[in-house]
Amino acid sequence: MDIRELLEGVKEGRIPVEKAVLALKTAPFTDLGFAKTDNHRAIRQGCTEVIYGAGKTAEQCSAIASSLIGNGAECVMVTRCDAEKASSIKTPLDSQYHGDARILVIGKPPSPREGSRVAVVTAGTSDIPVAEEAAVTAETLGSKVIRIYDVGVSGLHRLLSKTDELMTANAVVVVAGMEGALPSVVGGLVDVPVIAVPTSVGYGASFEGVTALLSMMNSCSSDVSVVNIDNGFGAGYIAGLIDRRTTR
Amino acid sequence: MDIRELLEGVKEGRIPVEKAVLALKTAPFTDLGFAKTDNHRAIRQGCTEVIYGAGKTAEQCSAIASSLIGNGAECVMVTRCDAEKASSIKTPLDSQYHGDARILVIGKPPSPREGSRVAVVTAGTSDIPVAEEAAVTAETLGSKVIRIYDVGVSGLHRLLSKTDELMTANAVVVVAGMEGALPSVVGGLVDVPVIAVPTSVGYGASFEGVTALLSMMNSCSSDVSVVNIDNGFGAGYIAGLIDRRTTR
Amino acid sequence: MDIRELLEGVKEGRIPVEKAVLALKTAPFTDLGFAKTDNHRAIRQGCTEVIYGAGKTAEQCSAIASSLIGNGAECVMVTRCDAEKASSIKTPLDSQYHGDARILVIGKPPSPREGSRVAVVTAGTSDIPVAEEAAVTAETLGSKVIRIYDVGVSGLHRLLSKTDELMTANAVVVVAGMEGALPSVVGGLVDVPVIAVPTSVGYGASFEGVTALLSMMNSCSSDVSVVNIDNGFGAGYIAGLIDRRTTR
Amino acid sequence: MDIRELLEGVKEGRIPVEKAVLALKTAPFTDLGFAKTDNHRAIRQGCTEVIYGAGKTAEQCSAIASSLIGNGAECVMVTRCDAEKASSIKTPLDSQYHGDARILVIGKPPSPREGSRVAVVTAGTSDIPVAEEAAVTAETLGSKVIRIYDVGVSGLHRLLSKTDELMTANAVVVVAGMEGALPSVVGGLVDVPVIAVPTSVGYGASFEGVTALLSMMNSCSSDVSVVNIDNGFGAGYIAGLIDRRTTR
Amino acid sequence: MDIRELLEGVKEGRIPVEKAVLALKTAPFTDLGFAKTDNHRAIRQGCTEVIYGAGKTAEQCSAIASSLIGNGAECVMVTRCDAEKASSIKTPLDSQYHGDARILVIGKPPSPREGSRVAVVTAGTSDIPVAEEAAVTAETLGSKVIRIYDVGVSGLHRLLSKTDELMTANAVVVVAGMEGALPSVVGGLVDVPVIAVPTSVGYGASFEGVTALLSMMNSCSSDVSVVNIDNGFGAGYIAGLIDRRTTR
Amino acid sequence: MDIRELLEGVKEGRIPVEKAVLALKTAPFTDLGFAKTDNHRAIRQGCTEVIYGAGKTAEQCSAIASSLIGNGAECVMVTRCDAEKASSIKTPLDSQYHGDARILVIGKPPSPREGSRVAVVTAGTSDIPVAEEAAVTAETLGSKVIRIYDVGVSGLHRLLSKTDELMTANAVVVVAGMEGALPSVVGGLVDVPVIAVPTSVGYGASFEGVTALLSMMNSCSSDVSVVNIDNGFGAGYIAGLIDRRTTR
Amino acid sequence: MDIRELLEGVKEGRIPVEKAVLALKTAPFTDLGFAKTDNHRAIRQGCTEVIYGAGKTAEQCSAIASSLIGNGAECVMVTRCDAEKASSIKTPLDSQYHGDARILVIGKPPSPREGSRVAVVTAGTSDIPVAEEAAVTAETLGSKVIRIYDVGVSGLHRLLSKTDELMTANAVVVVAGMEGALPSVVGGLVDVPVIAVPTSVGYGASFEGVTALLSMMNSCSSDVSVVNIDNGFGAGYIAGLIDRRTTR
Amino acid sequence: MDIRELLEGVKEGRIPVEKAVLALKTAPFTDLGFAKTDNHRAIRQGCTEVIYGAGKTAEQCSAIASSLIGNGAECVMVTRCDAEKASSIKTPLDSQYHGDARILVIGKPPSPREGSRVAVVTAGTSDIPVAEEAAVTAETLGSKVIRIYDVGVSGLHRLLSKTDELMTANAVVVVAGMEGALPSVVGGLVDVPVIAVPTSVGYGASFEGVTALLSMMNSCSSDVSVVNIDNGFGAGYIAGLIDRRTTR
Repeated sequence: MDIRELLEGVKEGRIPVEKAVLALKTAPFTDLGFAKTDNHRAIRQGCTEVIYGAGKTAEQCSAIASSLIGNGAECVMVTRCDAEKASSIKTPLDSQYHGDARILVIGKPPSPREGSRVAVVTAGTSDIPVAEEAAVTAETLGSKVIRIYDVGVSGLHRLLSKTDELMTANAVVVVAGMEGALPSVVGGLVDVPVIAVPTSVGYGASFEGVTALLSMMNSCSSDVSVVNIDNGFGAGYIAGLIDRRTTR
Repeated sequence: MDIRELLEGVKEGRIPVEKAVLALKTAPFTDLGFAKTDNHRAIRQGCTEVIYGAGKTAEQCSAIASSLIGNGAECVMVTRCDAEKASSIKTPLDSQYHGDARILVIGKPPSPREGSRVAVVTAGTSDIPVAEEAAVTAETLGSKVIRIYDVGVSGLHRLLSKTDELMTANAVVVVAGMEGALPSVVGGLVDVPVIAVPTSVGYGASFEGVTALLSMMNSCSSDVSVVNIDNGFGAGYIAGLIDRRTTR
Repeated sequence: MDIRELLEGVKEGRIPVEKAVLALKTAPFTDLGFAKTDNHRAIRQGCTEVIYGAGKTAEQCSAIASSLIGNGAECVMVTRCDAEKASSIKTPLDSQYHGDARILVIGKPPSPREGSRVAVVTAGTSDIPVAEEAAVTAETLGSKVIRIYDVGVSGLHRLLSKTDELMTANAVVVVAGMEGALPSVVGGLVDVPVIAVPTSVGYGASFEGVTALLSMMNSCSSDVSVVNIDNGFGAGYIAGLIDRRTTR
Repeated sequence: MDIRELLEGVKEGRIPVEKAVLALKTAPFTDLGFAKTDNHRAIRQGCTEVIYGAGKTAEQCSAIASSLIGNGAECVMVTRCDAEKASSIKTPLDSQYHGDARILVIGKPPSPREGSRVAVVTAGTSDIPVAEEAAVTAETLGSKVIRIYDVGVSGLHRLLSKTDELMTANAVVVVAGMEGALPSVVGGLVDVPVIAVPTSVGYGASFEGVTALLSMMNSCSSDVSVVNIDNGFGAGYIAGLIDRRTTR
Repeated sequence: MDIRELLEGVKEGRIPVEKAVLALKTAPFTDLGFAKTDNHRAIRQGCTEVIYGAGKTAEQCSAIASSLIGNGAECVMVTRCDAEKASSIKTPLDSQYHGDARILVIGKPPSPREGSRVAVVTAGTSDIPVAEEAAVTAETLGSKVIRIYDVGVSGLHRLLSKTDELMTANAVVVVAGMEGALPSVVGGLVDVPVIAVPTSVGYGASFEGVTALLSMMNSCSSDVSVVNIDNGFGAGYIAGLIDRRTTR
Repeated sequence: MDIRELLEGVKEGRIPVEKAVLALKTAPFTDLGFAKTDNHRAIRQGCTEVIYGAGKTAEQCSAIASSLIGNGAECVMVTRCDAEKASSIKTPLDSQYHGDARILVIGKPPSPREGSRVAVVTAGTSDIPVAEEAAVTAETLGSKVIRIYDVGVSGLHRLLSKTDELMTANAVVVVAGMEGALPSVVGGLVDVPVIAVPTSVGYGASFEGVTALLSMMNSCSSDVSVVNIDNGFGAGYIAGLIDRRTTR
Repeated sequence: MDIRELLEGVKEGRIPVEKAVLALKTAPFTDLGFAKTDNHRAIRQGCTEVIYGAGKTAEQCSAIASSLIGNGAECVMVTRCDAEKASSIKTPLDSQYHGDARILVIGKPPSPREGSRVAVVTAGTSDIPVAEEAAVTAETLGSKVIRIYDVGVSGLHRLLSKTDELMTANAVVVVAGMEGALPSVVGGLVDVPVIAVPTSVGYGASFEGVTALLSMMNSCSSDVSVVNIDNGFGAGYIAGLIDRRTTR
Repeated sequence: MDIRELLEGVKEGRIPVEKAVLALKTAPFTDLGFAKTDNHRAIRQGCTEVIYGAGKTAEQCSAIASSLIGNGAECVMVTRCDAEKASSIKTPLDSQYHGDARILVIGKPPSPREGSRVAVVTAGTSDIPVAEEAAVTAETLGSKVIRIYDVGVSGLHRLLSKTDELMTANAVVVVAGMEGALPSVVGGLVDVPVIAVPTSVGYGASFEGVTALLSMMNSCSSDVSVVNIDNGFGAGYIAGLIDRRTTR
């Protein structure tokens, strides 16, 4: 997009060739040495910035957050961030820590859009932390989230009592471990995209979530797609994107 | 939904208890013996009916299609349907066969909705049949489809020349075999959901698409979710759902 | 059991030591060279004899069947037996071939026991051959079989309309491919053992039934146990054993 | 079942429609927020309630147990419960902790039914904890349990000396790690269902129980079905169900 | 060994340096272009030569056999050789084709050594071809072979009746598919090395022999080692080596 | 590189903005509909063009070859091309078909560079086709190739006799199936990069080359890197690149 | 064997039937509750008794050792026994602890037999503990052991310098991790059985020894059989059995 | 090479036969008992010596380093060496510890060769330690290293801005975890060998680097070969070898 504007400037002599070459190559990120922060993503993708906290020190997280906010970001999430690290991150804006979700939100997330509605569903109690990661992510992107927890398929009446809530959502995140059967059942009840998140809940032949992942990949419901094991963030992000397009 | 209406009828004596019990239990499908066709799905999920053709005879497909159309469906797709089977299926309505996609469309699919735009992208030439399955599916659900084929990551300029087309889509389907790297790259360029389809294209350690599937599950782009290997139908269906919500 | 009787005979001099040694070692089977038929199993396990037909010639099947019937068996099943082989097997008794189940039944199977009731359930149409193998096996062991086919979890109402039939069975066989979710749902509805049979129905990441198998191993319903992929015979056999104990 | 009664009440005006709708939807469970306890399972499945203790806090276990007992349960098991957690769970009834089995039994389990007999067998000494989980589970369901431990196939005479005890059981649980060969051998000796439990005992290519699981899935004995690795609870539960039907 | 002799020759001037260099490098094989036949193996390893027939044409087999016999071999085996290829191989000596074993023996194999005794055992009828490959291999190496077929673990009495024959062998080859349990049982009965051969007999979760292989690797009997799936030749070869050392 | 030149032209008014935008986006490839041929690769990567023939029709191969040659390519390889397809491809230049390697070379490959020397080594006779694919590829890139075949590790003297030839190469390709041990041994003998190619030669637990691949990934020699199973082309290409840099 | 003697006693009235039944069933082991010690194995298998120490407490090991020695064993090994446990085991006879091998030897092992010679070879330094387990086991069975350590295939001259020692052994144990190539090379040099032991030495795609195991299963040398990962005991035991038969 | 010289000496009587035999067998290494150090590798492979530090004690590392330096090595690297071990290793020469790379360099590494240029690239921040292992290794072999970090494919502009630096390198090392897509993209941009290093960075279905490894094995770029997971050393070593040949 900017290419044309840049080239017009070059043609009109307002922008020197050297500078244009540089702009084309270096503008979109800031090089912190250990990381290259993406200053254009908010423009290009229109959403809150995200720092994947696992494997980064509190210092690195602080530096990246400062760089992003210094370049105009209004809200930055740090995911996979335990309580101790969260308390060590220095933030230029007010922040809120979500313990279950292990997410630190720096700055003010947007209010829920009108008509917004994302359902987050879990099969069991142990799946809740992953579900919260999805829920907080979607909320930080401006979605209203409906939580429906512990409605696994071995007690169908629990799920069926929530059919109305499910059927009014713009997107549904389904979080399940063990045999991962819930997304297929939910997918048969709704007419919106279902994003399935396998969790590492289980033992033995659950293989840390691989069985649930494979099960979900083979869903007999056509509206189910899958993200990585325990990837609540990705599911919440995608549900948020769908919800945003639906409500704008 | 109907439960309340039914119960009101029971209360007012208009509907006998026996009949209500029966209605609650048997209404939503027709039992053909070898299959139970789902008459309510069009109502519940608001879309064209689909018959998964693999492992069904032409006779079975004909019977199911007739049952669905007899119950009011206006358009029925038969997927995974080779040319020979397609020519043996008897259809009460006009039909069109899409050879690359291996889909028979019975009846008249809807015209594309205004503002509709789904992009279907492939890494290589061999991925085209799976991409066509996605494209025809989305079209049959009322989406306008943009095809961008053979733009794999080993020659980035091919993909980059299509950035504009990608960035205006409401949803993107990315089809790739071998190392399955394309969805991550596309996911970094767009701000809409990317549905990744691994294909069985490749040899040796591609393991019939498993490597591509795993690669896509681990995408460093947050907007990528994945469906089963060679499942063009599922990807097209989900992209169609997203596109429909965006354009309504 | 016979050991004591044999030893009494030895003590009383009626049975020579040499003969007793021989009896202890060789009695329970007939050695056909390529196979050792088990003449005592009917006594020891109280049921119809079974010949696993895969990888045996029609001649071998004929010889084993003759040996078993010559030693007193009244009914012999040949499983994994295609139509061509079935028509080539020479049988000393009348026989009936079940095409879907690929089972040849030689001799007269018992009538169903009073109170007997085994339910055989499938997720889809393609699972029917495996289900028939289970059903015919249970019938040949004297069980009455209720068939409930094509009630997969993506259309729950189909299954729920059959709840009564399910809840009155003494044992339930559930046959499913793809994500293998049905046994968990059925297991939550009934209070009898559920024997789950994964099938090789599916494609891509179904891995010829492995995904369904793993999913079933991780069932969140406590009453589910699992047999090998496509092993309808084993499931029908076990359901028959349970049904028999319940009804005797 | 209750549906009819409810509908009769609606028809006669005794039950308002609103209340019936609510009843149909919400009755069968109590929503504790983090969990939905299943109040109807005892009725529907006729047995003691079970709390899967892994991944739940002592407080959560206490709350669920209280809810179940408050709704009429007479006996509640908490499985996968280590000694420390067991001592922290507050129980409204007397309780007993089984250390080997890691099961806390709250309330009074039923006395063994007449004629009841479940055999629990292990290949080695290290398999005993899993076997105890099965044994205590079956006992809590009202079964009499015969324990036959350390009779692996490399010393056949140990197993053969127990043939009589095995052959009089109504159901047999076989627990084995390493190559998982014992269920096949036991399955050849008895004429009742054998529930095989692979254990994570072993090293190297035992893959934490996967080899035993696969071995058991391929058993050449027709009466063997399999549950998840280390799932003593499931095996004991299923054996208890079979034993109960046999003895009622 | 020859190195010293060669060096003595060099020292005494009988052998020129150039020639010695050449001898050290090129003597032990004949280069046929597509293959380098190993002329010293008979000397180095003291046994009949073997040509692995799979993936070689009849012409290539003929050429290698001729080269070996021309260099002094008295007996050459061609393994993995179907009947058609066997009939096309031109042999300078009389030959005998073993159909079950798929082995062509060219030249005269040695007579059995005194005291020689190798037992070859199978679990089922379908394992016989692999067992025959082992048996013919051992016989061609000069061993006397005792065949004990179809004595799988689900009917223990069949195996136990053969205990005497097993306990007098110098080495035992055990061939089994499916769950691969037989070597553990045999290993507990004998005090000689047991060479276990997994076979690809089975279906579903037998994974073409992988389950049997893993099971055998985890044998609880200490005297069991394992060769590749269907590798009857290797097992017969090793059993022959042990038998030879025992009887010399 | 061209960017600067293009921008200079824009600045001087020689190149219109519209045209520059177009040039930046569309120049580097020709869109054939089913494929986008890469016209700049010869410039960018300085070598002969390659068409991966598997899954392309003779017509598609002809069209792509014509497009490439029409854009200036002097030599084009078609890999994974069987004899029948090769004979159906229409070529604007003379061509030569290499049957073992399954490669069609269109146009005139360069003569070997001075000092060029790539060794291609195989463990067995069955590995030769993959080795030939590597050898012909390297030759077409201007390398002189030394072929050393059938020198597997079970007869070390065969390999050791070729040490001199190995030690003078600029790069070594080692092709092996089964246990894939040869690259480690060769890697210990030479001081140049070894590119290891696992082949699908083997049976049973060779898993179609996976075992060889894993073995090679774990080589104890530091100079070994690995390409995909049966990927002779890739190995030859990389060896050619190294050889070219060494000799220029 | 004893069966005949027992039966003679029964015939002659010296042994009551009841007692004979009991003897046949219970004689060969002592039931310690948690374990059934095998008193006949020394007779049946002619060797030192072995206690697998992993997962047994020092008290259990003490009790089993006492029972075995009380029943006549002269030498008992406790394998997989760390130093701490070894020091806590109470032994009725003098004992010696081998730290590298993690083996406690209770009682006096036999002196090496004349002519005895077992070679134990490792690829690297890290493989030594597994090799020592093999070596100490073989020594405890009466073998003389030659240790050849750190002779991996990336430096062939190290191995070749030991050819003489290798070629005079009656059996060879080869211990290797990573790519597991050494057994194939050794197998090509000797004419006795090679027992290969994969070790968990390595990282990444070594998969804790699985790659080495698979590599060894596919050895191109015919005389190689394989035991479980890190199973030095099994390999030493088998080598000891072969060595014993060779030397008696 | 030395063989000829040795043989000349033998011929002329200067070298006794005994001594020549010994020299041929024992010269190239020093036997430290637990290790055999390779004194000829520097001559044979022309590079700095390397000690793989994992699983060796500081004492063992010290002894091996001393032996190598005592035999003439000027520079010795200890890889996989944590800070604590590094500080305990006694070195006869000055040493430098590289913390990120976990490498201790003993002695003086060579200065960079003229024209030398190796690029080391990472996808993310977490891949840097593996990249540093590669970089320090290449530097110690005399290469100049260009580091390009955190340029993963989800933000292509970061990578594209570095195209010039990439295209002037003699060899490129690409380090990536998760989906491992970066090597394919880099491979399409350059015309030199790309050595891809999968890292264990990621979670869930990344399987500790296996997904990245498989992805890289299937690269659609022809110039990519792969080393083991996290094997930065191997990649740096190979890149160094290529760079050395290019620049000499």
